[in-house]
Amino acid sequence: MGGVSREDTETRRARVWLAAVAEPGDPRLGAFVLAHGPIPAVTRIHEGAPPFDDRASWLDRARTVDVDAILGQHAEAGGRVIMPGDGEWPTQLDDLGPTAPMILWVRGSVDLRLAAVRSVSVVGARAATTYGTHVASTISSELAEREWAVVSGGAYGIDAAAHRGSLAVGGITIAVLACGVDVAYPRGNESLLERIAADGALVSELPPQSHPTRSRFLVRNRVIAALSRGTVVVEAALRSGALSTARQARDLGRFVMGVPGPVTSPASAGVHQLLRSPETIVVTDAIEVADCCGLLGDDAAPWRSARVRERDELGAPLSQVLEAMPARGTITTSRLIHDCGLDEATVLTAIGQLDLRGFVEAADGQWRLSRR
Amino acid sequence: MGGVSREDTETRRARVWLAAVAEPGDPRLGAFVLAHGPIPAVTRIHEGAPPFDDRASWLDRARTVDVDAILGQHAEAGGRVIMPGDGEWPTQLDDLGPTAPMILWVRGSVDLRLAAVRSVSVVGARAATTYGTHVASTISSELAEREWAVVSGGAYGIDAAAHRGSLAVGGITIAVLACGVDVAYPRGNESLLERIAADGALVSELPPQSHPTRSRFLVRNRVIAALSRGTVVVEAALRSGALSTARQARDLGRFVMGVPGPVTSPASAGVHQLLRSPETIVVTDAIEVADCCGLLGDDAAPWRSARVRERDELGAPLSQVLEAMPARGTITTSRLIHDCGLDEATVLTAIGQLDLRGFVEAADGQWRLSRR
Repeated sequence: MGGVSREDTETRRARVWLAAVAEPGDPRLGAFVLAHGPIPAVTRIHEGAPPFDDRASWLDRARTVDVDAILGQHAEAGGRVIMPGDGEWPTQLDDLGPTAPMILWVRGSVDLRLAAVRSVSVVGARAATTYGTHVASTISSELAEREWAVVSGGAYGIDAAAHRGSLAVGGITIAVLACGVDVAYPRGNESLLERIAADGALVSELPPQSHPTRSRFLVRNRVIAALSRGTVVVEAALRSGALSTARQARDLGRFVMGVPGPVTSPASAGVHQLLRSPETIVVTDAIEVADCCGLLGDDAAPWRSARVRERDELGAPLSQVLEAMPARGTITTSRLIHDCGLDEATVLTAIGQLDLRGFVEAADGQWRLSRR
Repeated sequence: MGGVSREDTETRRARVWLAAVAEPGDPRLGAFVLAHGPIPAVTRIHEGAPPFDDRASWLDRARTVDVDAILGQHAEAGGRVIMPGDGEWPTQLDDLGPTAPMILWVRGSVDLRLAAVRSVSVVGARAATTYGTHVASTISSELAEREWAVVSGGAYGIDAAAHRGSLAVGGITIAVLACGVDVAYPRGNESLLERIAADGALVSELPPQSHPTRSRFLVRNRVIAALSRGTVVVEAALRSGALSTARQARDLGRFVMGVPGPVTSPASAGVHQLLRSPETIVVTDAIEVADCCGLLGDDAAPWRSARVRERDELGAPLSQVLEAMPARGTITTSRLIHDCGLDEATVLTAIGQLDLRGFVEAADGQWRLSRR
């Protein structure tokens, strides 16, 4: 934060204050800050202006908040804060609108914005099976080999396997935490989290020392979803938290992918439920994940254009027979032979081919353009 | 065939002749018969009229065909033939146009038309895994309990498991064969095929005594696809024949469903490939299969209407704020407060909700209608 303007420093201090007094992702505070700007928002809250019931609790929490102390300790521990407007701010988080993070607390060696541009979230159940962790780490390794960063939540099970798979081949991995970036949670992943801080990035919207709560996990999931181009769910039981990440990704217009598993495995039941929605794409390996996320903004197009192309590419005599078909109603075979001026054998062969390929169909012994 | 008209009998004999001299599913012969009718078609072929090279081979085969002998032996063995126009003809086969069967040879106790109206095809690999046969027989049993007939191909592996699952709970199952209905193929399924003949139906477009060939299996698959409302592929390796049944079902506008499996299992790789196409639906049990096939003609609608309804059901103040949004361009929060005549707190709460629900989005500190 050296060499920055006074206004920039004040904005950063205001955002740290706002992030410390309110829970992350509060859309009312977000809308208030978007409307007034961070510094006037803080002033107005102090002056009694914020039009919400929460003002009392915010001012309550504000009494224990020492912005400069928090920032100082975080910097001493090698951390940094990133806010909208910073070069390292991942602008895709702006898609979250009033629920976008006030600020991000980061520990790590990579540039968050650059890493996130080409990233995929790989998430899933904590209670993963051997199958699930095997698939998660394989997909992450292969994504890393294709220079995709892997985003996940630092939890046991699928999350840990995803981070490990990326780290194993020297890839970049980002853990978005539901606690402070200095809190080793879950305890059993302490060394994994330290490796992520060393080679990738630990990210949180909660100030250092914050502890995770159930609601913070759910609110955190929207950051995982927003940060990457798409979210892959590897294993998830029905009602798993990983499904909330997938829903957020869908609502944000990101790609949602699911890795199938045995239908006899409850650990895959939530993924299968997700895959039954038309927006979710089945993926079985990293190539399919990369193919999907590489097509950003162009997803359904290839299917539609394929059909148009097919018709354009019909050669004679099929194109001639198709041209002779009436736009509405039916035509007899003998009339069709007459109209297109070809011999019977050619017309019968062509009409059979056109029927097989779905362009025409038989109706009461005559022919019509297919309604399909 | 007692009590039928002379013309009906002659048409039946003509169709048996045509089915005996040509391979099933020949679109040129089918178009020729659709154009002229079966009896004139036979006469014209004898007179040298058919405009195809195949005429010589047809007449060659015709020398060995004794229509009355074939029909007599088939009837003696308890079989019957069904042709278009018969009360038992499954009219959905007409969707096959010029590749529709000339005639069907049937052995079985059920009315084919009635059974097919509420039927699902369950198909898959011969080289199935324990997982695949378990899932196929479970789905078929549960479909039978819901009074769905199960159509399959009588082969080893998934097909056999599908037939057995239905028979086990007293359901109706139909095997569409690539050989004559009196040929026990594959040999190891002989007793299964006899049970199907006793409690369900064995069906073929090939005359009795016909032996299966590679091409006959592929051609047969279109009948499996056309007969039922939808096709479920349980296990299929890449390039499995079961995938051709699925493609035929898709081309016919039938539902195509796939049962996922482990991505590490080559026996599921073809199913997963199929599931990556947007027309294919993930199913994990019989309820999902029945749900899918019960929605004939109404598939995508629920998704679209849900979105329209959501907007209609926004109560005040959300609907008021949404009304005040400009159709194009952006609006500031203060302008929005002014325009909709509500207080700041209400507008900020409402706009946050509208953003979360995807109706509006923030852009440069202002608001606009969401482009999503």
